[in-house]
Amino acid sequence: MDIAVIGLGLIGGSMLRALASAGHSVLGYDADPATRATARTAAAQSARDSRWQITSTVRDAANAASLVIMAVPLPAVPGVLDELVDAGYTGLLTDVTSVKGPVRDLVRTHLSRSANPLAGYVGGHPMAGRERSGFAAADPHLFTQCAWVLCLEETTNLSDWLELASLITSLGARVVPTTADEHDRAVARISHLPHLLAVALAATVIDNPLAGTLAAGSFRDGTRVAGSRPELIAAMCGGNAAALRPVLDEVLDALDAAGSLLESKDPMKSLVPWLRPGHDARSSWPTPAGDSIDLPAKADVLGRLGRVGGWIIGVADDRRTVTAVRPARPD
Amino acid sequence: MDIAVIGLGLIGGSMLRALASAGHSVLGYDADPATRATARTAAAQSARDSRWQITSTVRDAANAASLVIMAVPLPAVPGVLDELVDAGYTGLLTDVTSVKGPVRDLVRTHLSRSANPLAGYVGGHPMAGRERSGFAAADPHLFTQCAWVLCLEETTNLSDWLELASLITSLGARVVPTTADEHDRAVARISHLPHLLAVALAATVIDNPLAGTLAAGSFRDGTRVAGSRPELIAAMCGGNAAALRPVLDEVLDALDAAGSLLESKDPMKSLVPWLRPGHDARSSWPTPAGDSIDLPAKADVLGRLGRVGGWIIGVADDRRTVTAVRPARPD
Repeated sequence: MDIAVIGLGLIGGSMLRALASAGHSVLGYDADPATRATARTAAAQSARDSRWQITSTVRDAANAASLVIMAVPLPAVPGVLDELVDAGYTGLLTDVTSVKGPVRDLVRTHLSRSANPLAGYVGGHPMAGRERSGFAAADPHLFTQCAWVLCLEETTNLSDWLELASLITSLGARVVPTTADEHDRAVARISHLPHLLAVALAATVIDNPLAGTLAAGSFRDGTRVAGSRPELIAAMCGGNAAALRPVLDEVLDALDAAGSLLESKDPMKSLVPWLRPGHDARSSWPTPAGDSIDLPAKADVLGRLGRVGGWIIGVADDRRTVTAVRPARPD
Repeated sequence: MDIAVIGLGLIGGSMLRALASAGHSVLGYDADPATRATARTAAAQSARDSRWQITSTVRDAANAASLVIMAVPLPAVPGVLDELVDAGYTGLLTDVTSVKGPVRDLVRTHLSRSANPLAGYVGGHPMAGRERSGFAAADPHLFTQCAWVLCLEETTNLSDWLELASLITSLGARVVPTTADEHDRAVARISHLPHLLAVALAATVIDNPLAGTLAAGSFRDGTRVAGSRPELIAAMCGGNAAALRPVLDEVLDALDAAGSLLESKDPMKSLVPWLRPGHDARSSWPTPAGDSIDLPAKADVLGRLGRVGGWIIGVADDRRTVTAVRPARPD
């Protein structure tokens, strides 16, 4: 497959390497000339059968491609879309941005002014580690076993979706079918909210050096992601503000209830029922995988799979079935 | 030194082993007969020069001791104090409970009815890992480099305090001098609050299997301590309710402000200044240690040391000076 990767940070760079290793013909582009130079040097040093090429414009990368992957942060998406429209790109389009509703809306707005309609857009989001960033941290094995959301909306062309799902499962990832809105509400819970809590917790040791000295494991883990750059956290959380706000309120209500229990007559007892549901949820996470099964490759079947926490690990060559896994039910 | 350890869970068991290895004569007791049997078997298998003995009553353990270490959870403290009073124990007393004000008050109440006044009580708290629990997880090296609070109140006998500080630094721990009240306010921030946040966060994936499947690193680390037993978390948080409540309110106010920013015109920008202080606090934690210095072993000097996040790593044989470390100032 001829694929263009626009944006060569951790995710884009890792995709460039992973797709080239899988035998695809890959062109990469990054807006930063230094990143392009680094990626060109790395290409020359890579194995002969897994090389990529770096172009100097979005247009040059997209020209020959039948799939364009946008691997840029949300604020850079509109500019890339404009360049794709100007280049007359008409192939398949996906992205890896951590919010999906806003990208879907941007795609809709920007492509409406295009003379040539796009083959299709399928929003994507690999839940891949972000401890280090930039092309230097790129790793072709980053996506092994990672959950990779592919948005399956009512308007999505199912064969486009299956084409991408086939490509992404071939990289070792677990493809999770869901909608942009369901994705955004879910990541508000498990990715964006944890960042706000980590930052609020970290701030409690400011002006309290004694607390900083006594802090150990629970503080270390509870605040780890506060070490991410504030601009990145703001882009993630702010870009998903509509979904994050009600989840934040849910947690504020829960903590408010805990505060009342702290004032009850015997908080050492009264807190226990407040603690148990969260404790049980964490103790049964991650849910073990059930057996793999073959399912018909139909939109409604795949939508139900995502909603119960399932994923697919392969797409049949004839695109009629997928191999799926559901979380095992607790006994 | 003749030492009795009452309670042989992770902390008590580790102290038993560490003190025996350091050449002290150690007697251990646990209310659970099975734990006593396990500890007796382990004693028989330990090296000849680092053995301990297990007694069948608190009285037998305390009889010969000049130091008793209470290593039981807060709810069990009153019972142990009663037994020590009944046994006529008059030596030095310390504990390892995670809240210090309530234990101080219990000691005051229970010993007031004793005919023989105690030599002295010094509250203690090792900030040591709790991933696993019970005597089976006991490790004589658990306290290496760990911060170990020893409460230094206006009423504390300084020579008792220095005696304990000398013993504990000899186990490789960093002794942090502070008061029970300052300790309780600090651990509310860095230990008890993280547990409440972890549990509230973990609860957000209940009834959302999609979120559970997408959850990765930030959820895993942010919820880790929610895996602790609800009864243990309730005992910690409920036992420190008075100090925890205002810290919880502080975080609720901060998160409430973040919620308002999510509703602002451009949350991707307006969140940045909210995020920066917590980010900076986490990025500079743990503060690197400065050079070690000798300080006079005086209560006011030690109190100031703890308040700026410092600790002591040794006590001179003549008890006139301590070797202290302050956190290095950032450049």
